Amino acid sequence: GSYIVMKMWNFLEKAWQIGVNDPKKFIHCLKVGIALCFVSLFYYMRPLYDGVGGGNAIWAVMTVVVVFDYTVGSTLYKCGNRVIGTTLAGLLGIGVHWIASHSGERLEPIILQASVFILASATTFSRFIPSVKARFDYGAMIFILTFSLVSVSGYRVDELFELAHQRIATIAIGTALCILVSMLICPVWAGTELHNLTTKNMSKLADSVEGCVEEYFKSVEDEKSASKKIIGVRCVLNSKASEEAMANFAIWEPAHGNFNFGHPWKRYLKVGASMRSCAYCIETLNCTINGADASEIPDFLKNHLSGACTNLSSCCANVVKELANMVKSMRITSTSKVDLLIEDMNTAVQELQDSLKSFPNPSTISTENENVNQSTAETKPIHLMQIVPLLTTTSLLIEIAARIENLVED
Amino acid sequence: GSYIVMKMWNFLEKAWQIGVNDPKKFIHCLKVGIALCFVSLFYYMRPLYDGVGGGNAIWAVMTVVVVFDYTVGSTLYKCGNRVIGTTLAGLLGIGVHWIASHSGERLEPIILQASVFILASATTFSRFIPSVKARFDYGAMIFILTFSLVSVSGYRVDELFELAHQRIATIAIGTALCILVSMLICPVWAGTELHNLTTKNMSKLADSVEGCVEEYFKSVEDEKSASKKIIGVRCVLNSKASEEAMANFAIWEPAHGNFNFGHPWKRYLKVGASMRSCAYCIETLNCTINGADASEIPDFLKNHLSGACTNLSSCCANVVKELANMVKSMRITSTSKVDLLIEDMNTAVQELQDSLKSFPNPSTISTENENVNQSTAETKPIHLMQIVPLLTTTSLLIEIAARIENLVED
Repeated sequence: GSYIVMKMWNFLEKAWQIGVNDPKKFIHCLKVGIALCFVSLFYYMRPLYDGVGGGNAIWAVMTVVVVFDYTVGSTLYKCGNRVIGTTLAGLLGIGVHWIASHSGERLEPIILQASVFILASATTFSRFIPSVKARFDYGAMIFILTFSLVSVSGYRVDELFELAHQRIATIAIGTALCILVSMLICPVWAGTELHNLTTKNMSKLADSVEGCVEEYFKSVEDEKSASKKIIGVRCVLNSKASEEAMANFAIWEPAHGNFNFGHPWKRYLKVGASMRSCAYCIETLNCTINGADASEIPDFLKNHLSGACTNLSSCCANVVKELANMVKSMRITSTSKVDLLIEDMNTAVQELQDSLKSFPNPSTISTENENVNQSTAETKPIHLMQIVPLLTTTSLLIEIAARIENLVED
Repeated sequence: GSYIVMKMWNFLEKAWQIGVNDPKKFIHCLKVGIALCFVSLFYYMRPLYDGVGGGNAIWAVMTVVVVFDYTVGSTLYKCGNRVIGTTLAGLLGIGVHWIASHSGERLEPIILQASVFILASATTFSRFIPSVKARFDYGAMIFILTFSLVSVSGYRVDELFELAHQRIATIAIGTALCILVSMLICPVWAGTELHNLTTKNMSKLADSVEGCVEEYFKSVEDEKSASKKIIGVRCVLNSKASEEAMANFAIWEPAHGNFNFGHPWKRYLKVGASMRSCAYCIETLNCTINGADASEIPDFLKNHLSGACTNLSSCCANVVKELANMVKSMRITSTSKVDLLIEDMNTAVQELQDSLKSFPNPSTISTENENVNQSTAETKPIHLMQIVPLLTTTSLLIEIAARIENLVED
């Protein structure tokens, strides 16, 4: 008994924490409640109820439940899809109904069934096409739904017109209410969320580059904060799906805050892809560092490179941080500052290459520590293994920095 | 005019190609059509139509459209969620309605509104909790929908019982039909799809390891096939979301083919994660190879390592291919063969390390090619940069192979 209570309590505490970490989620829940209460007023106020044809008020409630979503963009996307899908399907359904009712009693059900079969199959297929899926997946479902309801229902055409009129009115009421509530009460813009995610990921990337190298050379005291920084890179790796969804929804949003209508949302995806290819490198580097036993490498070799490596990683982090700042504030003017930082980074790369060149010769080491039978010779490749991915990361970072530079025209 | 026609034609051709590449998609579309035609028979056959209370037949059609999905697993997931959500919400709604109708005319709308507000907000919040979202996201939406419809509609409680009875009957008919059609006509099992995706990704991984190294050492004639192999790694990187979705749906599926109920689907996610961490390495290696100008490196250096590298990469590929075969056929017996291949791989690693040790000394090279003023000295780090990520990949591959070995208890 108490075990289950404990589990329940833990579960609720965790759930509560989700909301505390992001109060917008609490607000969203209240918004859903508000929208539903508003729409259910249609049931309580007789004149309103009769105005939309009684039982059809169901469709307003249904629209609110189905369409209301976390961000303004996704709400607008669903509203647009629902309206377009319903209208198209309604018109087509009435047309098919008219044809069927004029072609005799025997042909009527056949025509209706055939039209449902063909249109449902074709629309289902269109949902497999990536470009349609991204923009009209929901609309396609609503189209199939409305079309089969209209064409199958046994009404006469003039009754159908009235029905369609009422249905569209209720859906319009539902969508209008959703749009108003989602845009007026603490709106969560998909575009802003995407923007914030991008800048947050950039600074996580910067932190993890630094943290990774710092942890290896143990120049940092508290290991916990370093490994926490490294975990940040996982977030960058896993944010592809949410980035794409948000960019899709952001297209539907009107101008808000600093974002105009037609803001280049696609660019965020490109930047995201660049960040991810950078994150792959860091993840690899991180695995290598954790895999190889650091204590195996003689300290003097480590110290030889420690300075240049730490310097380089902080230079890289500075470039990415500056880019994050630029994206955050959407300034274009300070490109020169980034250029400066990139130059710093390039000199740091050169420095590291120089210190590699002056690296104690493998043969020299072997003779030096002959007594440590063969172990040093073995550590040599391992050691290089640890240091060279860093170079890889750097060169990639440079490439990425250059690529992002091109993209920073926001 | 003709430009638009051309565009349309291209679009249709592309769409058609999607279906040709995966005929199951065509079949799915036909299945949707069949299910809808079946369910619409309720409208045409008077006795059936009257049996479920006339207008309520709408709910059967709606259920089919909304619930029917590509894989059996997702159809079952939606059916289960819909039934659970509707039943719970219906019972709760009737309860609240009963309380409200017994507490006076003034309190009634307040109680109803308050219950809608509270339950809708709470249920919406539960959808943010990852474990709830994974299993009951759709059910939560249906719960809100049904609850607000029931509690808001102005019926008396005895009428409500009849309504609920009919509603549940129509939904049951819809879900049963969906389940039958999706399971009997060319079923697409989420579990099988996940299984196939995993094995396909494994062989793509193997190909890309080989292709990457082959392309670098140009031991392959047609470059196109090599770069095509490398693209495979992108598929591995991007398949996280679909893997998770399929593993979620696969839980709902009954035993089929070689998969028993309670098949360890979670393991596929672990294997997928290991494969992805491997793919990160390959992607990094690939970037490095493409980034550095291969022509800068003197051929004799390249030839020195070419043999060992190619050997190692094919050993790695063999291990992964064998693992793919094992997963494909779900054999446990041949673990010894994998062990053998891993041993091969380890000796190949040793070999590569040996040839690195006997690598011409940087200082020696510099003196050898003094006339090529400094350029050779500069290429040294670049060259190492290219060769060492391969070692990284290898060591990671070994780690992964060991990890997968533990997992191969399917």
